[in-house]
Amino acid sequence: MEKKKGSLLTFRPDIKVVDATIRDGGLVNDFRFTEEFIRDLYLANVKAGIDYMEFGYKASKDIFDVNEFGPWKFCDEDSIRSIVGNNDTDMKIAVMADVGRCDYKHDIIPKSESVIDLVRVATYINTIPTAIEMVEYCKELGYEATINIMAISNAKESEIDEALELIGNSNADGVYLVDSYGSLYMEQIDELADKYLGMAEKYDKYVGIHAHNNQQLAFANTIAALTRGVSYLDATANGMGRGAGNCSTEQLLGFLKNPKYNIIPLLKFLEKHIIPLKKSGTVWGYNIPYLLTGQTNQHPRTAIAATKEGRTDFLNFYLELNDKD
Amino acid sequence: MEKKKGSLLTFRPDIKVVDATIRDGGLVNDFRFTEEFIRDLYLANVKAGIDYMEFGYKASKDIFDVNEFGPWKFCDEDSIRSIVGNNDTDMKIAVMADVGRCDYKHDIIPKSESVIDLVRVATYINTIPTAIEMVEYCKELGYEATINIMAISNAKESEIDEALELIGNSNADGVYLVDSYGSLYMEQIDELADKYLGMAEKYDKYVGIHAHNNQQLAFANTIAALTRGVSYLDATANGMGRGAGNCSTEQLLGFLKNPKYNIIPLLKFLEKHIIPLKKSGTVWGYNIPYLLTGQTNQHPRTAIAATKEGRTDFLNFYLELNDKD
Repeated sequence: MEKKKGSLLTFRPDIKVVDATIRDGGLVNDFRFTEEFIRDLYLANVKAGIDYMEFGYKASKDIFDVNEFGPWKFCDEDSIRSIVGNNDTDMKIAVMADVGRCDYKHDIIPKSESVIDLVRVATYINTIPTAIEMVEYCKELGYEATINIMAISNAKESEIDEALELIGNSNADGVYLVDSYGSLYMEQIDELADKYLGMAEKYDKYVGIHAHNNQQLAFANTIAALTRGVSYLDATANGMGRGAGNCSTEQLLGFLKNPKYNIIPLLKFLEKHIIPLKKSGTVWGYNIPYLLTGQTNQHPRTAIAATKEGRTDFLNFYLELNDKD
Repeated sequence: MEKKKGSLLTFRPDIKVVDATIRDGGLVNDFRFTEEFIRDLYLANVKAGIDYMEFGYKASKDIFDVNEFGPWKFCDEDSIRSIVGNNDTDMKIAVMADVGRCDYKHDIIPKSESVIDLVRVATYINTIPTAIEMVEYCKELGYEATINIMAISNAKESEIDEALELIGNSNADGVYLVDSYGSLYMEQIDELADKYLGMAEKYDKYVGIHAHNNQQLAFANTIAALTRGVSYLDATANGMGRGAGNCSTEQLLGFLKNPKYNIIPLLKFLEKHIIPLKKSGTVWGYNIPYLLTGQTNQHPRTAIAATKEGRTDFLNFYLELNDKD
């Protein structure tokens, strides 16, 4: 049975593009963006028709030293408002809250006092109960909330089934399929998307995808998922994100046929901010060590280290990855 | 109806990997590779289990000045033999012959005197009759021969149907689906692959794919095509090829589960030759201008020029691409 939603010439009103540049890109530069970068990205996103812009993490100041990171690691209400004011636009504001790394009861204020619209709770499969507790808390406060299950390429099908059933019975608005290691192929995305969508249709929720580019499949996997029926699509400007990076917004907007999306403001942003940022030595994107951690379904931390050190001894690196004694 | 051949854990004995590094990569550096580069690539390919290695073009010396290109633009028998001797290996040797740019009656000698196994005839859709004449000539001489139809993203379905029927009635061993502009999405690859395979099954031929990476879809489109039943897969070391380049051999070998393929010799080759080549200023691979020509289904020549000039005025470039008056 071939499931397919829409064709290359139709557009789907359920599609939402979520810009995660600051949040995932912040992992590259410890969230030290200039204010002009953030402001211009916000304005470009609004003009480009982006549906949500994720500003960063709601990270615990008990756990992380505020002096070691830029403000977008913490996303204080004042920080966001300094850019967006009351955000009198059609674009919604998102933040990410990591299970175990967020004082959510302290740091997440009632929606009525906040310019934030959506809280995305990031969790591993074994901490789903805590993630659901966080989601229920945020929903009580009046936010939209999703659960983003990370590192599913290392989870068993039965665990994913159980997690999805728990999420189905929660008040989460949506659930995200996250390819943390950039190891999944389109065929696996299809199967996972069907699984997630099965739960989502039963419980009236939406499904999102967050892809990584270790095997240069972030864009391919994103369009595979959307063809299957996934509707919330994460992307970042020029793919900026940890390690091999993400699905590029400029790739995704070129694909989507919905006339509300417009690539031009984004191209201007890339010219003005991304090219200088890359030239200044901020590094992300596909290379051989990331390919190899993706192929072997491993956390990219070893590849990030190899990239920082400028290692090109690919064979040794590969042998290290495969040494599991 | 979902057509799918094999799963992620099976391997298909019909799969053949064709290394096109010298031929497509030669378009980047005018075929000026060191002899050591070619020899090491040959040895790496043999060890990696590659099925065919394409050495370059059989280009006309009447049309092209031999002083302006390295020897792999012309692939004289002696040049190839200087690397492979009699090629006493399981790997076959291929060359490409372009319609209108090859003195095939002069330059292609009988197979009994040549170490070449396969002649791939590259053609646009309007020169298919000449391509077939060339294929019949090569088959008469004792070679394997394919027809590689370029730039199909700009051809009408009816033209492709007619071309395939002509090729079906020829003695060509196979036909190649070529995404010259890197503009096709997996969904289109699926449809084209089904069309090509329909003809191929009827006339007992095989189908190959040659993808370009303008939209970072070369690998994705290659695995989409092979999942559909395409069996000859072009790849190049680190994706080296014109403009945005090709499907990387290291990506493809990581995907294929056939134990005859081995990524290790290739990683050694990348370390020794590709990294220094890139450092020396030889440029290929994904960037924004290539993305934009891919998205707009255009020849990459404007993006190649923009890349050479180091242009980062993406918005102007985009507006130029869309100015079709």
